[in-house]
Amino acid sequence: MKSILDYETVSLIDEDDAIEIIDQTKLPGTIELIRLRTGEEIWNAIYLLQVRGAPAIGVAAGFGLYILMKHSKAASYEEFMKELREKSDYLNSSRPTAVNLSWALKRMESHVVKTADEMGIKENASGADFDINTLIEAMRDESERIKAEDIDVCRRIGENGLTLIKDGFGLLTHCNAGQLCACKYGTATAPMYLAHEKGYNIKVYCDETRPLLQGARLTAFELHSAGIDTTLLCDNMSASLMKSGAIDAIFVGCDRVAANGDAANKIGTSVVATVAKRYNIPFYVCAPTSTIDISTKTGADINIEQRKPEEVTEMWYKERMAPEGVKVYNPAFDVTDNELITGIVTEYGILRAPYDVSISKLFQNK
Amino acid sequence: MKSILDYETVSLIDEDDAIEIIDQTKLPGTIELIRLRTGEEIWNAIYLLQVRGAPAIGVAAGFGLYILMKHSKAASYEEFMKELREKSDYLNSSRPTAVNLSWALKRMESHVVKTADEMGIKENASGADFDINTLIEAMRDESERIKAEDIDVCRRIGENGLTLIKDGFGLLTHCNAGQLCACKYGTATAPMYLAHEKGYNIKVYCDETRPLLQGARLTAFELHSAGIDTTLLCDNMSASLMKSGAIDAIFVGCDRVAANGDAANKIGTSVVATVAKRYNIPFYVCAPTSTIDISTKTGADINIEQRKPEEVTEMWYKERMAPEGVKVYNPAFDVTDNELITGIVTEYGILRAPYDVSISKLFQNK
Repeated sequence: MKSILDYETVSLIDEDDAIEIIDQTKLPGTIELIRLRTGEEIWNAIYLLQVRGAPAIGVAAGFGLYILMKHSKAASYEEFMKELREKSDYLNSSRPTAVNLSWALKRMESHVVKTADEMGIKENASGADFDINTLIEAMRDESERIKAEDIDVCRRIGENGLTLIKDGFGLLTHCNAGQLCACKYGTATAPMYLAHEKGYNIKVYCDETRPLLQGARLTAFELHSAGIDTTLLCDNMSASLMKSGAIDAIFVGCDRVAANGDAANKIGTSVVATVAKRYNIPFYVCAPTSTIDISTKTGADINIEQRKPEEVTEMWYKERMAPEGVKVYNPAFDVTDNELITGIVTEYGILRAPYDVSISKLFQNK
Repeated sequence: MKSILDYETVSLIDEDDAIEIIDQTKLPGTIELIRLRTGEEIWNAIYLLQVRGAPAIGVAAGFGLYILMKHSKAASYEEFMKELREKSDYLNSSRPTAVNLSWALKRMESHVVKTADEMGIKENASGADFDINTLIEAMRDESERIKAEDIDVCRRIGENGLTLIKDGFGLLTHCNAGQLCACKYGTATAPMYLAHEKGYNIKVYCDETRPLLQGARLTAFELHSAGIDTTLLCDNMSASLMKSGAIDAIFVGCDRVAANGDAANKIGTSVVATVAKRYNIPFYVCAPTSTIDISTKTGADINIEQRKPEEVTEMWYKERMAPEGVKVYNPAFDVTDNELITGIVTEYGILRAPYDVSISKLFQNK
């Protein structure tokens, strides 16, 4: 029987002008692959979390922009770039907090500009001077590179994170920063998969992560499929669990890290970090450098997506679980202050406080 | 239209040999009153949380023991007491953490012993010397007194708690320590109801309280019914909310307070307290003195009920929300360390740290 880990989270089906994704809203009950072809389909898939997780959203955005531009009828380079920017802006509006979305879209655009530059395509080029096919091919190659690099980055985050784990460790994670949020290994789960491959006897505890239950539906599912000893808990059980001594380290993913190390991640992450601090448990944020946004000074500058009340009051329930008319507070993310973070695990190594210094040094060396 | 607050949480229907309760597992969708007559029905109603909350469980246990003994065929006082203790032990096994359950049952037993003493009934009395009807009447009166005192105690907790609230305050509560957990006013909600009656413009935020969603289904329901500005949030959103400045004080109920002030309450309470400490928000535990158990030294001595995995993995969902075979950590309560508690609001006033001293003093004066 195929395991969930045998499927690709996001892939390009070039001959069908489509992106293929696992529809993550159907998990763990049903493994269903769906193909996205139009801008609306891609936008909705990101908004509805059919594809989710910072790295996977970046990969989907790269493939998406390529697919949307593949049959462009632009008559000039200027027109082509105008169309590309419009489509990019549209895709970018699907989820405001994840920096990988805008990062991947900007990277695609820059690569087109660079390719045009190299080919000597002028801004007003048209007709024979405007080699649209080469630009489109360049977009395809770049989008495939984003995916290949993502896999490499996750593996390297896993290797760096593995140095923080010992045989017998109990680990806690929040939301899904697993293979289902990336293309292989995941970010927060990469050290867990590598520890498991190495034969370490680890126990992983997954916060269910309300309201959308990514921890219960996705993380518990993929880790359990991989044969890792997996235990599910409700988000509010973390203090009880940490107090019991079951947890040696915490690994979470992130959607955006500010220049000072403040990290936006799924709502509830900063609760876990606050409780971990009380029980002296190391709290690690696993972050591809593509999620570190040095143009964002602190966590206070991160735009937090507010989502609709029904996610809290009724989604997945047989009947409405809260009274009609009640208001709902439903932010999708919160910001964990840098002082609560023991280390930020990147593909280039583990950053430590003071983060403004270690992050700035990393970006200088990159 | 009748509001949920117009119904009695628990009442004795003496002419029908029954306890009548609102079946709280059906809320907020359906308001259904059910009658409990047998030991199994009462045990199940407590175990399944059809009736729940420390004070209401105490009241139900008192009525329950009376109903179960009302038609006793005991031929002697000794036999009567043996039967009473068996039935009491059985009811007491339905939920181990709530001290009010054993407190009410012990109180019923002591009252029978005291009544027998006063009447000069000897241990081996039988026949005409053993006036069974008077003992049964004494049980009915005592069970009604438990309920009447509960209403009085809640009102006094409300008055004491009200001194901690100012007009315009944002308040947070966890689980349901409302009218639905008691007989009127509730414990943690009593200051809120009194503030609202006084015309204070308060906003109350309710943690939904996974896994059984008492906050979403019950607290948000009853406060909203009362016309209070009510907002629901998932448990993991508390740090985001407190950081935003929306919360001025937190009131929670409790199931058992140890002699040193450690307080067992619904799972997640200590997470709220830990986060509140970080944001310097006062955290108050509302506790009738019947929930303070001076024979329990510290929180570590409190037996924490573990409940079944399905509450986390599937209850109320259309389909299973977690993979088959995954383990589940599902404690019903956690313990909030006394150092995280700003004050314990009782019917006799507000206790402050050091709690071993203030609690011991309270019990000396009582």
